[in-house]
Amino acid sequence: MSTELAERLDAIQLIDHHVHSVLATSPDRADFEQLITESDRPAPAGTTQFDSQVGFAIRRHCGARLGLDPDATADEYWTRRTSFPEAELVRRFLGGAGVDHWLVDSGWDGGRLLPLDQLRNQVTGRVGEILRLETLLETVAAGATASTLHRDFVTALTEAQPGVVGLKSIVAYRYGFDFEPDCPSESEIRQAAGRWLATAAASGPFRVDDPVLLRMLLWEGVRTGLPLQLHAGYGDPDLELHRCDPLLLTRWIKAVEPTGTKLMLLHCYPFHRNAGFLAHAFPHVYLDVGLTVNYTGAASAAVIRESLELAPFAKILYSSDAWGPPELHFLGARLWRRGITAVLAEWVAAGEWSTTDAIRVATMIGRSNAERVYGLADDE
Amino acid sequence: MSTELAERLDAIQLIDHHVHSVLATSPDRADFEQLITESDRPAPAGTTQFDSQVGFAIRRHCGARLGLDPDATADEYWTRRTSFPEAELVRRFLGGAGVDHWLVDSGWDGGRLLPLDQLRNQVTGRVGEILRLETLLETVAAGATASTLHRDFVTALTEAQPGVVGLKSIVAYRYGFDFEPDCPSESEIRQAAGRWLATAAASGPFRVDDPVLLRMLLWEGVRTGLPLQLHAGYGDPDLELHRCDPLLLTRWIKAVEPTGTKLMLLHCYPFHRNAGFLAHAFPHVYLDVGLTVNYTGAASAAVIRESLELAPFAKILYSSDAWGPPELHFLGARLWRRGITAVLAEWVAAGEWSTTDAIRVATMIGRSNAERVYGLADDE
Amino acid sequence: MSTELAERLDAIQLIDHHVHSVLATSPDRADFEQLITESDRPAPAGTTQFDSQVGFAIRRHCGARLGLDPDATADEYWTRRTSFPEAELVRRFLGGAGVDHWLVDSGWDGGRLLPLDQLRNQVTGRVGEILRLETLLETVAAGATASTLHRDFVTALTEAQPGVVGLKSIVAYRYGFDFEPDCPSESEIRQAAGRWLATAAASGPFRVDDPVLLRMLLWEGVRTGLPLQLHAGYGDPDLELHRCDPLLLTRWIKAVEPTGTKLMLLHCYPFHRNAGFLAHAFPHVYLDVGLTVNYTGAASAAVIRESLELAPFAKILYSSDAWGPPELHFLGARLWRRGITAVLAEWVAAGEWSTTDAIRVATMIGRSNAERVYGLADDE
Repeated sequence: MSTELAERLDAIQLIDHHVHSVLATSPDRADFEQLITESDRPAPAGTTQFDSQVGFAIRRHCGARLGLDPDATADEYWTRRTSFPEAELVRRFLGGAGVDHWLVDSGWDGGRLLPLDQLRNQVTGRVGEILRLETLLETVAAGATASTLHRDFVTALTEAQPGVVGLKSIVAYRYGFDFEPDCPSESEIRQAAGRWLATAAASGPFRVDDPVLLRMLLWEGVRTGLPLQLHAGYGDPDLELHRCDPLLLTRWIKAVEPTGTKLMLLHCYPFHRNAGFLAHAFPHVYLDVGLTVNYTGAASAAVIRESLELAPFAKILYSSDAWGPPELHFLGARLWRRGITAVLAEWVAAGEWSTTDAIRVATMIGRSNAERVYGLADDE
Repeated sequence: MSTELAERLDAIQLIDHHVHSVLATSPDRADFEQLITESDRPAPAGTTQFDSQVGFAIRRHCGARLGLDPDATADEYWTRRTSFPEAELVRRFLGGAGVDHWLVDSGWDGGRLLPLDQLRNQVTGRVGEILRLETLLETVAAGATASTLHRDFVTALTEAQPGVVGLKSIVAYRYGFDFEPDCPSESEIRQAAGRWLATAAASGPFRVDDPVLLRMLLWEGVRTGLPLQLHAGYGDPDLELHRCDPLLLTRWIKAVEPTGTKLMLLHCYPFHRNAGFLAHAFPHVYLDVGLTVNYTGAASAAVIRESLELAPFAKILYSSDAWGPPELHFLGARLWRRGITAVLAEWVAAGEWSTTDAIRVATMIGRSNAERVYGLADDE
Repeated sequence: MSTELAERLDAIQLIDHHVHSVLATSPDRADFEQLITESDRPAPAGTTQFDSQVGFAIRRHCGARLGLDPDATADEYWTRRTSFPEAELVRRFLGGAGVDHWLVDSGWDGGRLLPLDQLRNQVTGRVGEILRLETLLETVAAGATASTLHRDFVTALTEAQPGVVGLKSIVAYRYGFDFEPDCPSESEIRQAAGRWLATAAASGPFRVDDPVLLRMLLWEGVRTGLPLQLHAGYGDPDLELHRCDPLLLTRWIKAVEPTGTKLMLLHCYPFHRNAGFLAHAFPHVYLDVGLTVNYTGAASAAVIRESLELAPFAKILYSSDAWGPPELHFLGARLWRRGITAVLAEWVAAGEWSTTDAIRVATMIGRSNAERVYGLADDE
């Protein structure tokens, strides 16, 4: 029965509802090690980023995909990896993920990722775009003044909408979730725009971290009616994690509720139980544990299990949050399948769930919830 | 051994130390779905509340109690349920819970629950009453003035005491746990009472959410010496969950300590580990994971395990927190027995605990701790 | 394979990087019960501290070490224990821990513990000293004035350094982690010193809880370049646990980063996942789940598993945090070996890790990370 379950869950064609593009060119080893951690700092002397859950999972699961023995060392993995051009790795790893639709956050590539049109040519599945609100504002800022910034942003957002399936906010990184919940007034926005444009003009590239402007972005995003993804929980050292607990969004979530716009809480670790409560309490709140699954590797089944405690099954989605090395696009799917299979098989074995229900719920999380939320089935 | 353990734990006659009454009349299906979630919002279009841990657990465990196959669908469950009068469902479900003493919070019935005297006639076990402080204040408010409210409340509380075994506060819902720990002064209370009565007279029914009055209720409750239950952790969308972490009560817990009054932290999820620390640190603090067990269903064993980490075994109690559908009164007991059996059997199998100790601890949690705390064995 | 793994992990000679000394004389039973809880309050009437995870683990594992049957009761354990002089118990328990290097926090003994030089004579392994910053300040305070306190402290710290391998702060107990991150100025320190010395002169023994002085201690500790241990997470009822979440240190951690000083987050429960994020994000942050393992007993494997989610394996250390009864020095090692063996065996059995990697990671955590961080291998 567990074998049947594993086979059935392996066969689900996933929708990866939050992911980034892949590397345009091959990294060197030091570079690769920095791409398999959320830290932007080097590992301490005498240590390697391979000695982590994600590192072990890459050796084991990605190694197998490259024809290596399961006990391959990091060095062996690296040697083998370097024998392939990056495009071939993309083909093998993304092709092996069992994902037929990628919703790609195009808002940050660090100058290193394949543009979306090239990605579309390299993968067999469909590619949809998620638009990052902060990036769009930073793009229009160059030509804006304090009094035009808001209007220019709304115009750009309106123009961009037909081409995107959802929006994303990284207010967690840029400020935290402890912001005022209401929409700022025009005059507040104008003043904030003035301060920000003046500072940015003096100090260099536009990087929005003003809480008034960030709130304006959120509310304009909400107004579109598109599903709005929010980075929540852990990420790189930029953020102050205790200020990224999605519970801090409670008042804003209530303020958004009448609009009907769906809020997609991404990653959420270690606050995924808190996110599960929000998804339980509020019809318009959804969650995933993407990113977390890759970085907790062999330990990810426990996180997946916790994400299935309080959240209704119609409110949970699959994502990898992979960025850069195509290993991560593959590994997210692979570990999620292994983790959810382990969890559901345990409940089936204990006589708590039927195999039929287990397959149905895994399919909801892996695919059909995303189809419903983003309207993906309609536009084929 | 595991079988012996399961049989012995199944045989424990439980005390459900925090529960509500049952529905007076049968719900329709939409209504029933709203009664098996803590949310007061409808599920998103195209989804059902049955697709949740509690929904699955109802189909499996309550279905079996109604003679259904374990793989029965939600529709089949519903059809079968509607073939019974509600009183028969109450008889089957409460009768099958293995509970011989129900401590019933009588403070909120939404106009839908059986009054306690009728509940007493329908169940075989004993029924004790837990008095909700906020409800009592709202009851006396109609005839009170700013200067009499406090005194009127104390009089009503004194009169009510002989009939109740414990008190309950829902300050978590009405304000949060981040209140000033000390008892408010008479003049503070009088001013707050004046404001509140004036507002309530203008706006409709009395609903106390003034932090001064809520603190007065807590301190008057403490003065009675009766065990004082506090809703903690998650509940319906009214509350702001991050303000319901019982750790926020630390200073108030210390202020209460000299009185010797026992504080019963209810539910606690996802802060049950925090509650376990408080029960470890302070002799007068107790906890349960009621409500949580029902709503986490097949995943509840992990929550039960976490509640057994730091809390001394004499400080943990069983409750269902069931409200309304009699399924929940049954399911709380059923899932708790399955969960604690799974956890303790694992420790016995690992050679960490003896079967004798496992049975003794389960009996403490399921029954004898409640007998000791509420003095229930004395008054037979 | 699991047997091979267990045998190999049992054979690791551990470094206990945070521990205290042992009792100088035998306790009576009431006293012993108070020494196997973090609470400084007596257990409620009719209950015993033996009815807890640590109590059960003592009966099972320490009982076996004293030749008792695994099902021995608390009374039987106590009777057996009293048949040995304390020095023999120290010999048996510390000798049986498989620890060959103890890093002992000498900063608090309550007048009851063996001095370090005597401890050195009683154990076979090496003993290094961890210096507690607050204790050192309280020692120099007697001879200091407001204007000399800082300088006197720095002098004492400089003189003490050659004899110690690391420092420790208990700012979590004395204030919390929600302090200003920057180093206080000389004039702030002088003013704080004046207030504190005047108060202490009036009220009795010196006990530093002034946040300015506590920050001065932290920054002077950082300046030495020695690894700096911080109590984090739960402990006795003195602390306010929600103010001991290591995430509250984020800004201070960033301020310390340029110095390169290593920060060792101790215990961390129930915030060990948060600590794991910090160890993932910042090269100079490390963690352990000492104390927690002893107090969660049979349930400790889950905590160990969670500590292995996000933290790189080079950033996790072993400690017992034992204080007083030598049972705790033994039990910490015993439970940690059982817990990590259970966790790693599960991953090996699931095909996620190789046995070779499991042994290597356990050796890193149990020994070689401490050797690297504290420079212990160099000075043999």
